[in-house]
Amino acid sequence: MQFDGRHLINGQFQAEGNETFQVANAATTETLNGAFTLALESDVNKACELAAKAFPIYSELRLEERAIFLETAASEIDGIVDDLVARIGEETGLPEARVRGETGRTTGQLRLFAKVLRRGDYLQARIDTAMPERQPLPRPDIRQYNQALGPVAVFGASNFPMAFSVAGGDTASALAAGCPVVARAHSGHPGTAELVGKAMVRAVEKCGLPAGVFSLIQGKGHHIGGALVKHPAIKAVGFTGSLGGGRALCDAAASRPEPIPVFAEMGSINPVYLLPRALEANAEKLAEGFVTSLTMGTGQFCTNPGLVIAAKGEGLNRFKAKVAELISNAPAGVMLNAGTLNGFNKQQDKYRNEAALIGEGPSAENRARASLFGADLADWAGNETLHEEAFGPCSLLVETATDAQFVEATQKLEGQLTATLWGADAELESYQPLLNELSRKVGRILVNGWPTGVEVCDSMTHGGPYPACSVAGSTSVGTRAIERFVRPVSFQDMPDTCLPAPLKNANPLSISRLVNGAPSTDPIA
Amino acid sequence: MQFDGRHLINGQFQAEGNETFQVANAATTETLNGAFTLALESDVNKACELAAKAFPIYSELRLEERAIFLETAASEIDGIVDDLVARIGEETGLPEARVRGETGRTTGQLRLFAKVLRRGDYLQARIDTAMPERQPLPRPDIRQYNQALGPVAVFGASNFPMAFSVAGGDTASALAAGCPVVARAHSGHPGTAELVGKAMVRAVEKCGLPAGVFSLIQGKGHHIGGALVKHPAIKAVGFTGSLGGGRALCDAAASRPEPIPVFAEMGSINPVYLLPRALEANAEKLAEGFVTSLTMGTGQFCTNPGLVIAAKGEGLNRFKAKVAELISNAPAGVMLNAGTLNGFNKQQDKYRNEAALIGEGPSAENRARASLFGADLADWAGNETLHEEAFGPCSLLVETATDAQFVEATQKLEGQLTATLWGADAELESYQPLLNELSRKVGRILVNGWPTGVEVCDSMTHGGPYPACSVAGSTSVGTRAIERFVRPVSFQDMPDTCLPAPLKNANPLSISRLVNGAPSTDPIA
Repeated sequence: MQFDGRHLINGQFQAEGNETFQVANAATTETLNGAFTLALESDVNKACELAAKAFPIYSELRLEERAIFLETAASEIDGIVDDLVARIGEETGLPEARVRGETGRTTGQLRLFAKVLRRGDYLQARIDTAMPERQPLPRPDIRQYNQALGPVAVFGASNFPMAFSVAGGDTASALAAGCPVVARAHSGHPGTAELVGKAMVRAVEKCGLPAGVFSLIQGKGHHIGGALVKHPAIKAVGFTGSLGGGRALCDAAASRPEPIPVFAEMGSINPVYLLPRALEANAEKLAEGFVTSLTMGTGQFCTNPGLVIAAKGEGLNRFKAKVAELISNAPAGVMLNAGTLNGFNKQQDKYRNEAALIGEGPSAENRARASLFGADLADWAGNETLHEEAFGPCSLLVETATDAQFVEATQKLEGQLTATLWGADAELESYQPLLNELSRKVGRILVNGWPTGVEVCDSMTHGGPYPACSVAGSTSVGTRAIERFVRPVSFQDMPDTCLPAPLKNANPLSISRLVNGAPSTDPIA
Repeated sequence: MQFDGRHLINGQFQAEGNETFQVANAATTETLNGAFTLALESDVNKACELAAKAFPIYSELRLEERAIFLETAASEIDGIVDDLVARIGEETGLPEARVRGETGRTTGQLRLFAKVLRRGDYLQARIDTAMPERQPLPRPDIRQYNQALGPVAVFGASNFPMAFSVAGGDTASALAAGCPVVARAHSGHPGTAELVGKAMVRAVEKCGLPAGVFSLIQGKGHHIGGALVKHPAIKAVGFTGSLGGGRALCDAAASRPEPIPVFAEMGSINPVYLLPRALEANAEKLAEGFVTSLTMGTGQFCTNPGLVIAAKGEGLNRFKAKVAELISNAPAGVMLNAGTLNGFNKQQDKYRNEAALIGEGPSAENRARASLFGADLADWAGNETLHEEAFGPCSLLVETATDAQFVEATQKLEGQLTATLWGADAELESYQPLLNELSRKVGRILVNGWPTGVEVCDSMTHGGPYPACSVAGSTSVGTRAIERFVRPVSFQDMPDTCLPAPLKNANPLSISRLVNGAPSTDPIA
């Protein structure tokens, strides 16, 4: 496979600078083929200006045309899955099954948003008809729907080279909303980004759209991200990554002359609660499930179970013994890149210094070993280090002495993407105060499952209070992600011929609308 | 009428400090009765801590109980309308009819949100049922709805002592969403704030709610606002006021350890476009409507028509002549307070220096005179001063030479709350590019009406791109305002007994839910 290495701007490879970077094979550390250009601010400006130019045209497309574009993009990406398997494997160490699965999820996401466009509910079309006789003042005819926000900058994630990267969830939802995208490739998988970027450009061409609808910027380091977020044409940002990186973008966006929202999905430790009866009945099975979830993908998931909260007792002792046994046989895993491995090892060493080792896997050069550490509630509660995410297959068990301590521990937590409870149905009911407390802390509560694995569907929340997400009121997975990139616009006494299609009397899109306070698909008389 | 003057915290008057301030009669400048306490940070902390304590209880109330509380608050406020007429008249110079109208709007708003709670659509309840047989992986049962965000700080506006203040739109929508409110009274009408605050406290008591659901903080100056926005218990902020004040709160909120959203409705000049045929046919009628809208409430509306864009020609000449005549007879008006009058006079003088006078009303001591100035497109486009809002009865006419210049002028505008077009139906159709451009710039487009007057209904957008609003994707008027103060939470494989009411199988609230991609009010089998 050969790579051009430059950015994709205006539908073609181009770059203002000529300094390049290369990446290493995640498993072998050998340098991979392909030299990728470091973007200059002038590259970023060009992409943003083209996005601004494309915005009026793209956002005014019929919904059906946008849906077809998303489906075309999905097909183009499906068509390169073998290349993706090869290159993603090299760049990130992710195995074939995972790459195929993640690619299917990515194209499935694009197709799901096509469905959302055809369904039209994201438009939130609302009509209040005129009441010319109302006293003391007549009511005008007012109609409202959601319109595209403007060009969006998307920052690819290291750990999901497909589903949260160049054509991932943020890109799919922004494009669905009618917003052109300037995607900043993650420097960990620039070859993958180029493959996906080319597929996106082909889809733009096939659909006859302006080239500015999609651009890809290669690069490394921080300043180009800042330039992208600060460009006046950009009206929102999607990001998945570290707390430090996400917060830097939030701060940059907030200090613009025109502040813009940054939807940053950041760290999470995803507490797992093992309730006493479940633990007593199923300690060994829970240990198996836990170690599988912990070590899956070498622990490199936003929803990795980084914290277990469980009641002291015989059941917990069995759980610990079984985890120790299983983890000692869990082979050390390849991480995404040397930087990630290095960061993980540092955080794991911090845990080692601050908590007691429960179990640990075999070590191997250039690989991450799995581990579980333990601490009492009181020791954990006041220890900042033990609240930090260890991005990789490392978790912490906090032992509680009373039921009330489950709630107490929860109150010490920052915002989280997920929380998981293992308990019998009857047992769960008696933990309603804990469930309520959790619902104020997290984006998703799971019962009797494992947090790794995020279903892409209408009802998914992948977000949560800060620092899980920078905007608690939003989700980055599932169809409500489109809400990030729209804004309401109202039309008062506008003649029918001038109204946008979703608001016309005849209801030409046959969508459900809130008409005078009640849902209706009927035309307006 | 006697005033206690202290804050309302924990359901009673109290204050840590004892420094006080007084306010002047807007019309006579005489000092009014009542000495109001300057808040200390310890007052703010107390209110915020009580709000945090009330949050779990209040947010978990049944929707019907929250609806009844909103209706109780509305009744309590209706019951003091005579006191409000008296005090608001003194504090702000607003006439009786306006105060009665604005009070009705305020209580109507509270009652409308009670309806929204009973309708339940703001919950966005969504259910994707389990697919245990799905390949390659089973789908879990996932359910999502909108939950309250947390305690909200509300900053009252100077120009709407009722509808955008202590129990105004932000308070109504936050309380509806399940968020306790700490209201910061505007220092221009602290007596009004006390009257309304007492009504709110009575409603809290009558409904048996925790006192922390509502607090009122009196004060002046900036530091207490900062302390309120920076308090960790506060999870969102509602503000209506100046660009400077709103931006300062945005910056403070963005720099918190946990950044929070600030929904600030700020300045707007609300361009009015007079299309050639409408102008030709109705120049004099348009002049009458314009002067009425410009001088209504002494021009102190966020939606005041501060900019008129019209094509040069005979029609425009007639419009200008008629405006000059009408305005010369428009009596100078009382402004909200000395500070507002002073700011208006300064901005009007700036216009005077930078643009040509078209017409001006008689001057009077301690009153604001109405005025219209004029400039060519080219002179206006590059002149920053002429893009600044003059908060009061002063507007600017920009003359264009071609139709293309309507679009050109629009591109020079910042984000706006409203834009208005006057045109014949057939004429409007040929201005579709202008309409499209406007829909990217504003929150609401009106045809053949005047922007002053904002209907409170399901389909209203009172917002728009920055600086009209700090969060373009939101509205501060209309039922969608509730969306500011909620966030989605998902439940995966949660037993029915533990699910919140909106997501239970039986659909006990009888609301419409998105079930497996289709709206349904049916129970889940």
